[in-house]
Amino acid sequence: MKYLLIICFLFISLCSNAQDNDSVAVKKIYNEVLKNGKGYSWLNYLCNKIGGRISGSPQAQSAVDWSEKILSTFCADSVWLQPIMVPVWIRGEKEQCSMTDSKGSKLPLNICALGFSTGTPQEGITADIIEVKDFDQLAMLGRKNIEGKIVFFNHPFEPTDVHPFNSYGQSVAYRWRGPSEAARYGAVASLVRSMTHSEDDFPHTGSMRYNDSLPKIPCAALGFLSANALEEKLKSGKVTVTLKMNCTTKEDAPSFNVVGEIKGSEHPEEIIVIGGHLDSWDNGQGAHDDGAGIAHCMEALRSIKAIGIKPKRTIRMVCFMNEENGLRGGKKYAELAKSNNEKTIFALESDEGGFAPEGFGLDMDEKKRNKIKSWSNIFAPYDIWKWSDNGGGADIGPLEELGVPVSNINVSPQRYFDYHHTANDTFDKVNKRELHLGAAAIAALAWLISEHGLE
Amino acid sequence: MKYLLIICFLFISLCSNAQDNDSVAVKKIYNEVLKNGKGYSWLNYLCNKIGGRISGSPQAQSAVDWSEKILSTFCADSVWLQPIMVPVWIRGEKEQCSMTDSKGSKLPLNICALGFSTGTPQEGITADIIEVKDFDQLAMLGRKNIEGKIVFFNHPFEPTDVHPFNSYGQSVAYRWRGPSEAARYGAVASLVRSMTHSEDDFPHTGSMRYNDSLPKIPCAALGFLSANALEEKLKSGKVTVTLKMNCTTKEDAPSFNVVGEIKGSEHPEEIIVIGGHLDSWDNGQGAHDDGAGIAHCMEALRSIKAIGIKPKRTIRMVCFMNEENGLRGGKKYAELAKSNNEKTIFALESDEGGFAPEGFGLDMDEKKRNKIKSWSNIFAPYDIWKWSDNGGGADIGPLEELGVPVSNINVSPQRYFDYHHTANDTFDKVNKRELHLGAAAIAALAWLISEHGLE
Repeated sequence: MKYLLIICFLFISLCSNAQDNDSVAVKKIYNEVLKNGKGYSWLNYLCNKIGGRISGSPQAQSAVDWSEKILSTFCADSVWLQPIMVPVWIRGEKEQCSMTDSKGSKLPLNICALGFSTGTPQEGITADIIEVKDFDQLAMLGRKNIEGKIVFFNHPFEPTDVHPFNSYGQSVAYRWRGPSEAARYGAVASLVRSMTHSEDDFPHTGSMRYNDSLPKIPCAALGFLSANALEEKLKSGKVTVTLKMNCTTKEDAPSFNVVGEIKGSEHPEEIIVIGGHLDSWDNGQGAHDDGAGIAHCMEALRSIKAIGIKPKRTIRMVCFMNEENGLRGGKKYAELAKSNNEKTIFALESDEGGFAPEGFGLDMDEKKRNKIKSWSNIFAPYDIWKWSDNGGGADIGPLEELGVPVSNINVSPQRYFDYHHTANDTFDKVNKRELHLGAAAIAALAWLISEHGLE
Repeated sequence: MKYLLIICFLFISLCSNAQDNDSVAVKKIYNEVLKNGKGYSWLNYLCNKIGGRISGSPQAQSAVDWSEKILSTFCADSVWLQPIMVPVWIRGEKEQCSMTDSKGSKLPLNICALGFSTGTPQEGITADIIEVKDFDQLAMLGRKNIEGKIVFFNHPFEPTDVHPFNSYGQSVAYRWRGPSEAARYGAVASLVRSMTHSEDDFPHTGSMRYNDSLPKIPCAALGFLSANALEEKLKSGKVTVTLKMNCTTKEDAPSFNVVGEIKGSEHPEEIIVIGGHLDSWDNGQGAHDDGAGIAHCMEALRSIKAIGIKPKRTIRMVCFMNEENGLRGGKKYAELAKSNNEKTIFALESDEGGFAPEGFGLDMDEKKRNKIKSWSNIFAPYDIWKWSDNGGGADIGPLEELGVPVSNINVSPQRYFDYHHTANDTFDKVNKRELHLGAAAIAALAWLISEHGLE
C-alpha cells in the first residue's frame, strides 16, 4: 500500500510537472507574440501593399511570392510551392444597377456580381422584379409569375440567432444556388440580399454555382440598405430593375499553395497542419477573410521558431490558394498528402477572421478530442474557453475526407459578417492584440500536439 | 420508498420545469433585444447629439434630461431625479506641448490635461524633462535631479498580460498620484504615458488627485506615439519641453442621478439595481465609457417591459452622475438607499464598454454566488461563460460598503483601452449586436434574480 501510494504520488507529480512545463512553454509563446509579434504588420502588407487577391490575379501571385519570402525568412526551416490550376473570374468594370417605380422615379442600388456570374448584354438587362422569401415561395409562384423577370431573393439574415455563422448557413443557399433555381422558372437575372446584420450598403459577394442543365443568368448581391429600399419600393407597386455587369470567366491559370514547416525533432513524419487561405475576393483587401488566418498561422510558426522551443513533431503551415472560388488548393494539398503517404495527425484552419479568440472546434474521435480538452486548464488563463465538437474548414475538408482530425480556431463571431466578402474588409478593421492572441492560441495548440501527439 | 421516489421525481420535474420556464423567458429577452433593440440608436443620440458630457457641463444636463425622457417613455414605471452637487473642471482651450532637443530642433507632442489639473501660466512652462519608469526610480533620483524639471512618467502599459484591465491597474497610479509624487521632489509639471496598447496618438485623460500638502503642478497625458517620440529623443541627450494649458476648477454645481424602475409584483421592497454612468470625459463622445453602460441598462429594462414579463422583485436602473471625477452620484445614491432603509439585494454596473459580453463578476457571499452560477446553463447558449469571484464598479462601490452584493458585466476587454478617455471614444467604435448582446445578458440576469431572489 505504501509503495502504491508513492507510485501514485510520483505519477501525479510527473503529470503535474508535465503540465507545469507545458504552461511555461505556452506562457513563453504568448509573451513572444504579444511583445514581438509580426503578424499584424504582415497583415498590413498583405492588405495595403498587395490588396484584394482573387485567384489567378497578379495580386494573388504577389501574395504567393510574399508569403514564400516571409515563411522562409521568419517562420520555417523549409518552404516550397505546390503548383495548381485555378479558375479565373474577372468582375470587369464596376457593376451598375437601378430601380424604377411605376411613376418613373429612378434610384440607384448598390450591388456586386456574385463570383462566376455571367455578364449582362452591353445595354444591360431591364425587367420587372419579383420578390421571394425562399425556395418554397419561388416554386409556388412558378414559371407563370417568374418568367422574364428578375428574382429578388429577400431571405432575412436572422437576427435572433446569437451565432451569425448559423444565420449564414440558413441564407447562403440563396446566393449559392439561387440563380439557377430562378432560371429554372425562366428568370432573366437574380439579386440576393447580402448576408449581413450590418446596416450599411456594402454588397457582399461570394461564390455561386450554376446548374449546367439550366440557363446561366447574371446574378448579384444587394447591399443591406439597397435591399431594404427595394423591399420598401415593392410595397407600393411594380418595380423595374436595370442591371449592367460585364464579368467573365477565363481559362484556368497556374497558381500555388505555399507550404513551410519546422521539422519535428523526434517524430518528423507526424505532421501538424495549420493554415488559412491566401486568396480573397477582389472587392476589398481580404483582411479578416482570410488575411487574418494567414497572419495567425505565420505568426504562430514564427513565435515557436523565435523562442527556440523545438517541436517533437513537424508543424507545417499551408497558405491555401483558391478557397473562395474553387478550393483547388485544398484539394491539391490533400491529393499530394495522400500520394506522398504523409501522416497528418491534425489539421487546423483559421478562416473566421482576426477577432478575439474563444476556443477551438475539434472534429475528431472522442479520444483525441479528450486529449486536447485535457489541456483546457493550460488555455484558461488566456480566456480560451470554447471547445466544441465540430470544426474544420473548407481548405482542410479534403484532408478530413482522408480521415485527418480537423480543427478550427473560433473567434468572437459577431462582426465577421459586417465585413465578409465586401469592399469594407480592410486592414483597419483588425485589432492588433485580438489578432495576435489568436496567433498565440494556435501556436500553443500546435506546440502541445507536437509535444504530446494525439494518441 | 415508493412515495419518496415519487416526491423526488416531482421535485426534479418542478426544478427542471422552472429552469425550462427561465430559459424560455431568457430566450424571449434575447429575441426582443436582437430584433427590436433601441439601445444602439439611443447610444447614437447620446454620442452624436449630446456628445462629451463632463460633470457640470451643459451636455451633462442634456444627458440628464434625455435619460429621464427615455426611461419614462420606454423603460420604467416611475422615474425620478436625485439632486447632487458635482465638481466642475474645465479644460479650456486645446492644450499645447512641444519638445526641443539640444540642437534646437522642435517637435509637437500630443497631450491632454489630466482631470483636475491646474493650468500653466499664460506663457506656459518650459523646463528640462526627466524620464522615470516608476516611483522607486523617482525617489532614487530625488530632489537634486528632479527640482525645476518636468517629470515624464514612462511606465509601460504591459503588453504580455492578456487582461488589459490588469495592465491598467499597474499603470494608473502614475496618472492618479504621479503629479504630487513628482511635486514632492520639486518638479514643475508632470507628463504621463497614456494607458493604452494602441499605437496611435490620442492622449488618454483621466482623473488625478493632488496631495494637498504638496504644490499642485500641471499634469497631462502623452499620446502613445508622442511618448515614444519623447522617449526616443531622450536617448540622444537633454530635452526641453514647453507646456501650455489653461484648465481650471470652478465651484461645485448642481446635477442629478436619474433613476427609473419597474416595481416588483410580489416583493417590491427587494431592489435589483443595474446601472452605468451618464457623465463622460469632455474630449470624446464617451461611447464605450460609459454611454454603452447606459444603453445596456436602458435596453435591458426596455426589453423586460416590452415583452411584458412582470418581475417579482423591483428592477431599478440608475444613471449615475460624476463617476469620472468625483463619484458624487454613486455616493449620494448609497446615502439615500441607506437613509430610506432600502433593501438592495443586488447591484450591477456596466462600465467596461459595449464589446461582446463574456460573463459576470460576482462579488458576494458564496451562497448567493452559487445561486447565480446555478443559472450558468441558461446563459451558455448565448456564449456567456465567465463567472468570476470579484466584480462591482466604482459607482456601486458605496453600495458594496453597505453590504450589497455587487456585480459587473464582463465584456471582451482587448479594445477598451484603445478608446478609454480619448477623443477616439466615439459611437462608430461600438458594434450594434455586441452592444445589444450585453443588454440582453444584463436583462436576463436581472430578471432571473427578480424571479428567484438571492436567498
